[in-house]
Amino acid sequence: MELTLAVDLTGSPNGLGLVDRDGKVLDSLPLAPTEALDGLWEELEGVLEQVPARVARNGGTLSACGVAVGATVGDLAGASGRDLLAEASRLVSSVVEVPVHVEDGGRAFALAEGWLGAAREVENFAALTIDETVSGGVVVDGRLLDGAMSQAGRIGHWIVEPEGRRCPCGARGCLESEVSVPAIELSSGRPLTEPSYEQMRHVGRMVGRAAASIVNLLDVRLVVCGGRVAREYASTMILAAQEELDATCRISFSRGARIVTAKTPAPSGLIGAAAVAWNRTGGVL
Amino acid sequence: MELTLAVDLTGSPNGLGLVDRDGKVLDSLPLAPTEALDGLWEELEGVLEQVPARVARNGGTLSACGVAVGATVGDLAGASGRDLLAEASRLVSSVVEVPVHVEDGGRAFALAEGWLGAAREVENFAALTIDETVSGGVVVDGRLLDGAMSQAGRIGHWIVEPEGRRCPCGARGCLESEVSVPAIELSSGRPLTEPSYEQMRHVGRMVGRAAASIVNLLDVRLVVCGGRVAREYASTMILAAQEELDATCRISFSRGARIVTAKTPAPSGLIGAAAVAWNRTGGVL
Repeated sequence: MELTLAVDLTGSPNGLGLVDRDGKVLDSLPLAPTEALDGLWEELEGVLEQVPARVARNGGTLSACGVAVGATVGDLAGASGRDLLAEASRLVSSVVEVPVHVEDGGRAFALAEGWLGAAREVENFAALTIDETVSGGVVVDGRLLDGAMSQAGRIGHWIVEPEGRRCPCGARGCLESEVSVPAIELSSGRPLTEPSYEQMRHVGRMVGRAAASIVNLLDVRLVVCGGRVAREYASTMILAAQEELDATCRISFSRGARIVTAKTPAPSGLIGAAAVAWNRTGGVL
Repeated sequence: MELTLAVDLTGSPNGLGLVDRDGKVLDSLPLAPTEALDGLWEELEGVLEQVPARVARNGGTLSACGVAVGATVGDLAGASGRDLLAEASRLVSSVVEVPVHVEDGGRAFALAEGWLGAAREVENFAALTIDETVSGGVVVDGRLLDGAMSQAGRIGHWIVEPEGRRCPCGARGCLESEVSVPAIELSSGRPLTEPSYEQMRHVGRMVGRAAASIVNLLDVRLVVCGGRVAREYASTMILAAQEELDATCRISFSRGARIVTAKTPAPSGLIGAAAVAWNRTGGVL
């Protein structure tokens, strides 16, 4: 039985798993929470040592490793000038000889939704995930779009409010500066878990606005929305987003486009990391 | 020598041409202007009869036919429920036996820019063309994106002004309702050829705003802008668009993105139609 080694570093929480071609998680190993990148790497190294025995116990063979990286790890690595792919490859290859593939967590989320979630068997869709940051991936013509630096689909810096709030990136009115968890908590003065109805509708409208332009530009007809904000705000947010889509997707090919909540089964972070590995080895999308 | 039959129905003006693999136009046949779709089809049928002799005279063999369709023809066909691909195929096959490929003019423009224009040898770019309507195409990972109904990249209904003008499509603040030729003339009360400096800068800012979000979403670093408005407003508009890009593309992978004017050589409409044919037969993008 072919297995993939899934490494979830999106903080959902972090962990390792062995995942088969059908998306069944046969084994999982949590990674202890760490603050700094060095600590995470040490923790990973320690847990990786158990992998060969776990693979053998499950009677499988490992064919690839997929790593999904969240914003926190990505930012830490970026700030320190470290190459995550090189470091992950070095660590993994010290215990097993398989190719290692690293992806942004939002792009991994899109792959997972296309594999086992709300966009199963859909050839054209966009997926976005709203947590501390906003990210995502776009699948067109059955392929996850890469772009010049393999960053396509990371939708956080899409301008939804041209005169809106200043985003840490330097621009104004980015989706991330309007609907991320910190943005919501800052503007409402309340924790994410205690939203007002109007706040949930506002987030939905902003998400719907970005989704509508994507639909009108890329001729996709499905947008999948996940992450903590989508879970907390649930149908109130999605309904407001769908209203915005209905008002804005009015051309022949975009009418009837839908926005839905994510459906990848738990543990979705591990499924996402596994999807990264299977995607690069021809199994997913 | 392999040739393509290029049929330009984008109104630039309409015409037929024989184009080789290098983009050289060996022969061209104008189509008389017509108002209705039936007239255009009759005109095309008459001119097509000359094609076999023209191909023989040029010592070539025809391997495909590409048709680029502008908004006017597209709207007429849409309103009458006619299938352009079926009609074009029927007409062409009455004189020559080659596969026929039909594309939106904006998508053909993108292919032409990637083949012989400003995006030559660029694997990731967006192209938009601003005339009576606004259209375009997006090339990611070296491929023109199709989408669910082969309409991807038609950027006209991207929302640039959330509270902006009502667009004929029914939404508000679409790029097309802000910067198309009719939109410009309506809002300024002056013909396109007599713009104010502020008008040109406004159009540039709107174009730059859409371009910046595309760059931030799709990880492309080049946007090519063509059509009548780009020609008339030239560097004043492009400079304003570039300023908007510089202010908005601030994340690691989008910094330094550029917007430039189209560079496909004349007759660019025929080159676009030829690019459609070569694209589908493996020669362009």
